[in-house]
Amino acid sequence: MRIYDIIAHKRDGLALSDEEIAFFVRRYTDGAIEEYQAAALLMAIYLRGMTDREMFCLTREMARSGEMLDLSGLGGVTVDKHSTGGVGDKTTLIVAPIVASLGLKVAKMSGRGLGHTGGTVDKLESIDGFRVTLSPEEFIKTVRKTGLCVVGQSGNLAPADKKFYALRDATATVGSLPLIASSIMSKKLAAGSQCIVLDVKCGCGAFMKTPEQARELAKKMVAIGRHEGRRMAAVITDMDAPLGRCVGNSLEIAEAVRILQGQDGGDLREVCLTLSAYMLSLGLAITPEQGYAMAKKALDEGNAYRKFLEFIAAQGGDIRQIEDLSLLPKGRYSRRILAKDEGYITAMNAEKIGACAVLLGAGREKKSDAIDYGAGIYLHKKIGDFVKAGDVLAELFTSEECKLESAEKEFFPTVDIGGTPPEKKPLIHGTVM
Amino acid sequence: MRIYDIIAHKRDGLALSDEEIAFFVRRYTDGAIEEYQAAALLMAIYLRGMTDREMFCLTREMARSGEMLDLSGLGGVTVDKHSTGGVGDKTTLIVAPIVASLGLKVAKMSGRGLGHTGGTVDKLESIDGFRVTLSPEEFIKTVRKTGLCVVGQSGNLAPADKKFYALRDATATVGSLPLIASSIMSKKLAAGSQCIVLDVKCGCGAFMKTPEQARELAKKMVAIGRHEGRRMAAVITDMDAPLGRCVGNSLEIAEAVRILQGQDGGDLREVCLTLSAYMLSLGLAITPEQGYAMAKKALDEGNAYRKFLEFIAAQGGDIRQIEDLSLLPKGRYSRRILAKDEGYITAMNAEKIGACAVLLGAGREKKSDAIDYGAGIYLHKKIGDFVKAGDVLAELFTSEECKLESAEKEFFPTVDIGGTPPEKKPLIHGTVM
Repeated sequence: MRIYDIIAHKRDGLALSDEEIAFFVRRYTDGAIEEYQAAALLMAIYLRGMTDREMFCLTREMARSGEMLDLSGLGGVTVDKHSTGGVGDKTTLIVAPIVASLGLKVAKMSGRGLGHTGGTVDKLESIDGFRVTLSPEEFIKTVRKTGLCVVGQSGNLAPADKKFYALRDATATVGSLPLIASSIMSKKLAAGSQCIVLDVKCGCGAFMKTPEQARELAKKMVAIGRHEGRRMAAVITDMDAPLGRCVGNSLEIAEAVRILQGQDGGDLREVCLTLSAYMLSLGLAITPEQGYAMAKKALDEGNAYRKFLEFIAAQGGDIRQIEDLSLLPKGRYSRRILAKDEGYITAMNAEKIGACAVLLGAGREKKSDAIDYGAGIYLHKKIGDFVKAGDVLAELFTSEECKLESAEKEFFPTVDIGGTPPEKKPLIHGTVM
Repeated sequence: MRIYDIIAHKRDGLALSDEEIAFFVRRYTDGAIEEYQAAALLMAIYLRGMTDREMFCLTREMARSGEMLDLSGLGGVTVDKHSTGGVGDKTTLIVAPIVASLGLKVAKMSGRGLGHTGGTVDKLESIDGFRVTLSPEEFIKTVRKTGLCVVGQSGNLAPADKKFYALRDATATVGSLPLIASSIMSKKLAAGSQCIVLDVKCGCGAFMKTPEQARELAKKMVAIGRHEGRRMAAVITDMDAPLGRCVGNSLEIAEAVRILQGQDGGDLREVCLTLSAYMLSLGLAITPEQGYAMAKKALDEGNAYRKFLEFIAAQGGDIRQIEDLSLLPKGRYSRRILAKDEGYITAMNAEKIGACAVLLGAGREKKSDAIDYGAGIYLHKKIGDFVKAGDVLAELFTSEECKLESAEKEFFPTVDIGGTPPEKKPLIHGTVM
């Protein structure tokens, strides 16, 4: 078998055989196939597509390129949730304790933030003492005892995907649905959970811009997981505007806590209840409606909040910062952004708000950047709200005063104010089961 | 400007700007653009195509990536001929002396053979003493004095093309018409001749399998040359069967000499007269019919042969081997291939006959292979001939006796014998002016 022929087959629009895909993934990962040959094949895949069978095989090979976590000894149904990435997306912090409080096991590996999207691991690190790096034994022990554990992604999880992703990122081949689907699912399969709920974001702050694109991606990922014997569901949620009111690490921890304490509601609570509903539906073999009711009860009765405290403590985090949110890091300098005009907020651009938060220090432009945990944005107003000139739209936080001026300039164009109230857009665009 | 954006533009089917193409060619050639990024872009070009404008720009940038030969001081009209490569194609050896004997200047850089196709430079090296490496000054001086000179390709002629070609060869992106056309024409433009006649081969022994494909390629190359102010013509010639009766270096020299001496005729003489007709038409601003008549006269009256002797002598070749062809190298071992059946020869597969000649030692499977100058195949019968069982179909020559057995086995399937005479196919499929 020669990589040249495999490239030629895909170039000519043929479906690759299982053997060809296995050859490609294994030999590329071990360095026997040159980067330029892999790049040519990835571009051919981008432009010619892949059949479901090819995509299944690619995902499986990438998943098996490294460690496959065995969660069978956890003594419960394991459930994972994956978000395709958004701005203000702190759902993991809320849904994981909800479903763990109801008996499911959440053994979660999460990513770090890059560009305008944040990462759960960064958010948790804004709590003093919280450890995101555990040994495999500690990880398993914590899940068994507490019902949930969230750690950073292990280097040996789907290493093929890591190598492919870096190449795709340099060759403009990221945006291929079968490649996105197999990249995400290879890591989810390797991470070992039996049930997987995907939160596929769509809108200007997400990779998928329309609900239709998001649904296509969701269908592919659900098909892959099911083909590998996992219980799958996907929820397509809106990411035109940021989710919730907070963007930035400690701000998001505080917001998640307020949701868990029943103090806050809105879009964030609704998305979390829906995701929990599907996680419980898969894990307990009940209907999503039953799952929704159980999740709501777990929130309302404080069980999810108590599970959250247990989880933070189990990973070394300082509980006092949760019980008194004013102890969390907070940017020393802040600025209120005042509305210049009167009218209805018709749009809030999630991607640009994410970029503004990065500018304040809340995120990374490149992997090596340090994070200012107390930096970020609190949105006092959201889409549909009526504002008068001088009303506070948002408040910016940072540890570096010099950043306020440019961040304020960046923030203004993210909000559109108009004379008529905007049409109400759905928060949940649909589900794929 | 970023290569990432250029890749994305072509991936999305946009035409690249002149600036983008210049950036790509220059930065790739100087090593600033990674091989894998160039590979992704080449595959996108393969699958998305290029406009004529993009192709013109790409060709020009590749031509100008190295030395541009200045032939203006040669004191005559310069004319070049390029063949897209075939089996038994020794036309350069015949047409160059024909048109030089009629006053045109042929300053030719030729390639070496690789795979089933031969190279003029290898053929000339089968003559003792013949030098294919001359200094630029010697090259110009020889053309000025003799009217023609044939040397190996200079390393600094279109170096961008050389780098691109190696990458295309490894990434299954050779077969793109705009990339083929710009690759060939970048070298022809850099080689400096005012008039260029392209011999675009089609058939099973050629890269282009059908006359239609060959015509498409011819049209692109003619358009490029004309856009750069060159006088252009293309002749589409048949390469289903080998051209002439000989395949192999010294065998082909001998066959060319016999054509120049008026001893042989057939398809080879006809193709040579046609190519010469177009070279003379472009160079002397006459009709191809007038050119044809002049070329025929130059052959028939011996002027072309005398020019050939002068050319061989000028580059150090031993004239005695031309005047007595038995002095040329000849494989010590030979085997006659006898027909097993009676009937008409309906097909002779040029590609497979070329591969059989390589097996005998006449060519290279990889660049570093040595050549057995006396090895090759003499075809006693050609398409349309009637044979009886036991008739000699061909004779194989080699310096290594052990190769005869497997070469004979390879040879048999190259010839089809049937009960009815084959339909006569045109030798010249058309021209593009």
